[in-house]
Amino acid sequence: MNAVRADYTLSLELPFLSFLFPEAQFHVGQLVILPIGLSKTYLNEIEADYQYVDIECAANLLKKRRKFDHKGNLGHALIIAGSYGKMGAAILACKACLRSGVGLLTTHVPVTGYEIMQTSVPEAMVCIDESASRFCKTEEQGNYTAIGLGPGLGIRKSTVNLLDSLLKNSKKPVVLDADAINILASNPEMLKYLPANSILTPHPGEFRRLVGEWKNYYERLKIQKEFAKKYKIFIVLKGANTCIATPQGECFFNSSGNPGMATAGSGDALTGVITSLLAQGYWPKNASILGVYLHGLAGDLASDRFGQQALIAGDIIDNLGSAFKQLESLMETSL
Amino acid sequence: MNAVRADYTLSLELPFLSFLFPEAQFHVGQLVILPIGLSKTYLNEIEADYQYVDIECAANLLKKRRKFDHKGNLGHALIIAGSYGKMGAAILACKACLRSGVGLLTTHVPVTGYEIMQTSVPEAMVCIDESASRFCKTEEQGNYTAIGLGPGLGIRKSTVNLLDSLLKNSKKPVVLDADAINILASNPEMLKYLPANSILTPHPGEFRRLVGEWKNYYERLKIQKEFAKKYKIFIVLKGANTCIATPQGECFFNSSGNPGMATAGSGDALTGVITSLLAQGYWPKNASILGVYLHGLAGDLASDRFGQQALIAGDIIDNLGSAFKQLESLMETSL
Amino acid sequence: MNAVRADYTLSLELPFLSFLFPEAQFHVGQLVILPIGLSKTYLNEIEADYQYVDIECAANLLKKRRKFDHKGNLGHALIIAGSYGKMGAAILACKACLRSGVGLLTTHVPVTGYEIMQTSVPEAMVCIDESASRFCKTEEQGNYTAIGLGPGLGIRKSTVNLLDSLLKNSKKPVVLDADAINILASNPEMLKYLPANSILTPHPGEFRRLVGEWKNYYERLKIQKEFAKKYKIFIVLKGANTCIATPQGECFFNSSGNPGMATAGSGDALTGVITSLLAQGYWPKNASILGVYLHGLAGDLASDRFGQQALIAGDIIDNLGSAFKQLESLMETSL
Amino acid sequence: MNAVRADYTLSLELPFLSFLFPEAQFHVGQLVILPIGLSKTYLNEIEADYQYVDIECAANLLKKRRKFDHKGNLGHALIIAGSYGKMGAAILACKACLRSGVGLLTTHVPVTGYEIMQTSVPEAMVCIDESASRFCKTEEQGNYTAIGLGPGLGIRKSTVNLLDSLLKNSKKPVVLDADAINILASNPEMLKYLPANSILTPHPGEFRRLVGEWKNYYERLKIQKEFAKKYKIFIVLKGANTCIATPQGECFFNSSGNPGMATAGSGDALTGVITSLLAQGYWPKNASILGVYLHGLAGDLASDRFGQQALIAGDIIDNLGSAFKQLESLMETSL
Repeated sequence: MNAVRADYTLSLELPFLSFLFPEAQFHVGQLVILPIGLSKTYLNEIEADYQYVDIECAANLLKKRRKFDHKGNLGHALIIAGSYGKMGAAILACKACLRSGVGLLTTHVPVTGYEIMQTSVPEAMVCIDESASRFCKTEEQGNYTAIGLGPGLGIRKSTVNLLDSLLKNSKKPVVLDADAINILASNPEMLKYLPANSILTPHPGEFRRLVGEWKNYYERLKIQKEFAKKYKIFIVLKGANTCIATPQGECFFNSSGNPGMATAGSGDALTGVITSLLAQGYWPKNASILGVYLHGLAGDLASDRFGQQALIAGDIIDNLGSAFKQLESLMETSL
Repeated sequence: MNAVRADYTLSLELPFLSFLFPEAQFHVGQLVILPIGLSKTYLNEIEADYQYVDIECAANLLKKRRKFDHKGNLGHALIIAGSYGKMGAAILACKACLRSGVGLLTTHVPVTGYEIMQTSVPEAMVCIDESASRFCKTEEQGNYTAIGLGPGLGIRKSTVNLLDSLLKNSKKPVVLDADAINILASNPEMLKYLPANSILTPHPGEFRRLVGEWKNYYERLKIQKEFAKKYKIFIVLKGANTCIATPQGECFFNSSGNPGMATAGSGDALTGVITSLLAQGYWPKNASILGVYLHGLAGDLASDRFGQQALIAGDIIDNLGSAFKQLESLMETSL
Repeated sequence: MNAVRADYTLSLELPFLSFLFPEAQFHVGQLVILPIGLSKTYLNEIEADYQYVDIECAANLLKKRRKFDHKGNLGHALIIAGSYGKMGAAILACKACLRSGVGLLTTHVPVTGYEIMQTSVPEAMVCIDESASRFCKTEEQGNYTAIGLGPGLGIRKSTVNLLDSLLKNSKKPVVLDADAINILASNPEMLKYLPANSILTPHPGEFRRLVGEWKNYYERLKIQKEFAKKYKIFIVLKGANTCIATPQGECFFNSSGNPGMATAGSGDALTGVITSLLAQGYWPKNASILGVYLHGLAGDLASDRFGQQALIAGDIIDNLGSAFKQLESLMETSL
Repeated sequence: MNAVRADYTLSLELPFLSFLFPEAQFHVGQLVILPIGLSKTYLNEIEADYQYVDIECAANLLKKRRKFDHKGNLGHALIIAGSYGKMGAAILACKACLRSGVGLLTTHVPVTGYEIMQTSVPEAMVCIDESASRFCKTEEQGNYTAIGLGPGLGIRKSTVNLLDSLLKNSKKPVVLDADAINILASNPEMLKYLPANSILTPHPGEFRRLVGEWKNYYERLKIQKEFAKKYKIFIVLKGANTCIATPQGECFFNSSGNPGMATAGSGDALTGVITSLLAQGYWPKNASILGVYLHGLAGDLASDRFGQQALIAGDIIDNLGSAFKQLESLMETSL
């Protein structure tokens, strides 16, 4: 089959769905969106299965701080992450969580992660697991307004039991990433215990373990949508133009981010951001969309400073503040 | 009852007391102080139960460094903070203490906090508690010009004993925060041993444990004033417009700060700042007022850089230098 | 013998080979290259034994990121470095590796390096060696797209065995530095197991241990070229105008860098950079040339900020992002 | 006795000696040096007992880097510092040493300081003392081009023995600070073993322990000069206008620095700077004068950013690069 390999593709007001697929990369070249004056109000009101999240959509989701806000009404997140040799994942998730506005953060780590966490993230409290099997007692869960679980966690038996117990006892949506998703993939009977509106943030490799192979990106999108509807969860499928499928069958494609973010720990940071927003009372859908957009925008701002090649996950976290500020300034302008 | 919900409230020269109450938040909206040319000298001289601390008040309290100042005449602070899983509180309090001008700082921490503190705060000396019960020997206390106690300390029996012993043996005012206040709340018989002019820095939740429920902010203010007078201590009640009640019955409302500071560890930093000023020989009243103002101003400068949402306690500490400089530049201008 | 001691030496389009030798330092003074309009295309096409790597040569080697790049296609590097008392070498090599674009990084360290690495480089996964002799199992090697080995490793018997086993089992080129080179020098029978196209990065002292004494720089260059051809490896001989000898007998002289980089850990950083590029699929020749240029340029940018005297290895790493950006901007201009 | 208390004192070309004494502080006020065109060459050539070190004197002492300098000819310093609870002193001394241009740095610390040092100063190699008494073996000393000893070391018997052994075996001048000086004060019989041209850097309290009380600053100066001549050492007496007495009876008063440097760890940093310069081959006299000036200038640059009140020792170290650059730029201008 012959097809044009364009250097540039200009699209009016919005991209075509296919432009967002990896298969189209060499045909689309650099994508440029040309505004043609369509009414924003109209675009926001029409019901569409596929939506493209730009900076204005994201800014509309942001809650402003109020003068008398205090730690108590800004949520208390719990991050369960890290294991011997992979404590860095916990550091990155926790730093990103704190930099996304949560009031309090507790992180649950194994004994071998205690000093590492306290030295690296002094703003977080640390709940130490004496053995993997004893973990956070379920009665304590009630105090947390959101739980994020997975980065660097490993997939040992005791960790599987822990996740199993947490899912069965949790009444609130949770954020699951990395090894938490790998555990679900190996133990599909646990899927039915996922609290409704939970958020899973797989990269394509993790998603493949969960759902099996796909033939092309169109089929992958179909599988993603069905999976989200079946289990009543949000699937945040990471990559260029990260796609968020909702339990209602909608799909949100993210417009921020760059390939410099294809670096170790980038996903751990996203888990922290989304958990933080969820803990602050954002609806799971908004936490997913806004979190993904902020994470990508922070990566864009970081690459302005360090270039894409040298970008590391810590840079994304360091630029979350500037990303929030950019959205805030848009809020103020639009008032 | 019907009441206006204003977007803006303009107040001449000073705010009304009620504008500073959380109940008024939605009615006041954004508060703007309009100077009308009242004589600053007059305002400073009149005796008023309620005072509003602006940047000029704060700058007037600042002591300038003299050319031959040395470590020995800039005080030696002791910070007793942190426990297993909460060492970050000690890190933040110590960093803030050093960044507020003290000559020397020793921090007393449990064995499990030793490496964490030395790695994180190399400028501080560490006194290691082999067990919670043995703690800092009282004869050593004489060497410190001020003691701050509480952040992340926990409320175990041995810690209660330690606080009890420290209060009974201390001849100088101390700064008590967080778990030190929680211990007082559970052991009200210890209140009578509080050295005169000690400084307590509760957030509203900790204050409630200490004094019980209140009906509204007016009653809370009354309780705060009576408590400060009864025990001859300073009560720094944290929140938007932090209120400092003195043993003499005065109240100082702080004007700096923003809701981005409603984040884990923000209060630990304040403990460090006030302890530092007290150690340098500031009167407890001035240490409280100036410390609270500086802490808020550092938070405002930090939010200029990172926005309110992404602000973490470490940012407040990093901006203490700029806050001091801003007050210093005002001193020079006013000469 | 009498010879001029010039303050400045002007050279047309390219330097003479002799200008790059330490013996010529006092005679050449400051070297200035004057472009005289020779065709770049012509210069790049002629076959020359000696080439001078300037910023355009380096920029031509750089691969641009593509939109759908992900961690999985950006390589997974393994850095084997550090020992009791020399863990800093591992930190520096790993940070530099991450800052040079690799998708994933695992570092193999002894137990005594575990907390140090996780605290210092959260983006890296840590594979912990319970004893020096057990080390990374060979079957795991297949997962890594490149291995860098040597900084701070020590030369104990168990480490020698480990290197021996790794060389015999590796099918891909490896990057060897510091103590890995010292081990080869003491065990020359291991040289024949070096995978073809491996990269050795000795400083002159390490190179001397490997090949014995030389009379002057000309002889050293001859020895270097023969050694590279004999063992089919790249020899990156560090110093001012670092010289890269290839298995094909070519020599590339680097033009970036400054004497401020003569500081502890500078070489460890270079190991990280080259390993990172190799892991991303750069040919060993290009990984060597580009890596050396980037490292030198980062050092130049760092000395612009800190001066040469105060420059430390960490500064070089911190400026890798700016170095990449400078090459990238050149790519864009030349399009 | 009546005396003027001036706000400003203007001095022609140079200050009077008495202006530099703490007793004169309130009478001198702010000192301003007015150049009146005296010949710099003349001023530098006349022999004077008392010299005032300004930025030009300091810049004249600085050695420029040469293109082919490498780690091997930039010295290898050994810093012996730190003890349980005072490891921060070792961190600060080592960071300052590396930031002052040394080629290699080894630090000798107790087991309890191992992880702290490697995490905090990756550029330094760590030699671990299994017990205080076994310490660095004397045969190893030959490899170091300079040794700095004292910050945070403690004064236990085993440390005393160690210092005794080091002094008796050392053929090169050493830099002694803090507890090393306190040990000499308690064991005056060790003074006769001080290698000629060693550098002692006491603050006034440490100096008092060494020589006893003085009546006033004039007498202190006389005692300092005699002590330096008697033991053939340099006495760097720290304070505003730090005074360096040489074995030849000269005195150099430093002009850089500010009271913001009266903070914990400031002296540890100075030990690192002077040890670094000595290791690079600077004469002890020049290492002392240049080191003190650079340290003070770095403090001045730091206070420009953070103000004097918030200045911590780490800030001084972070600004050493800018201080070196300022001297370097003066060298270039004067050529």
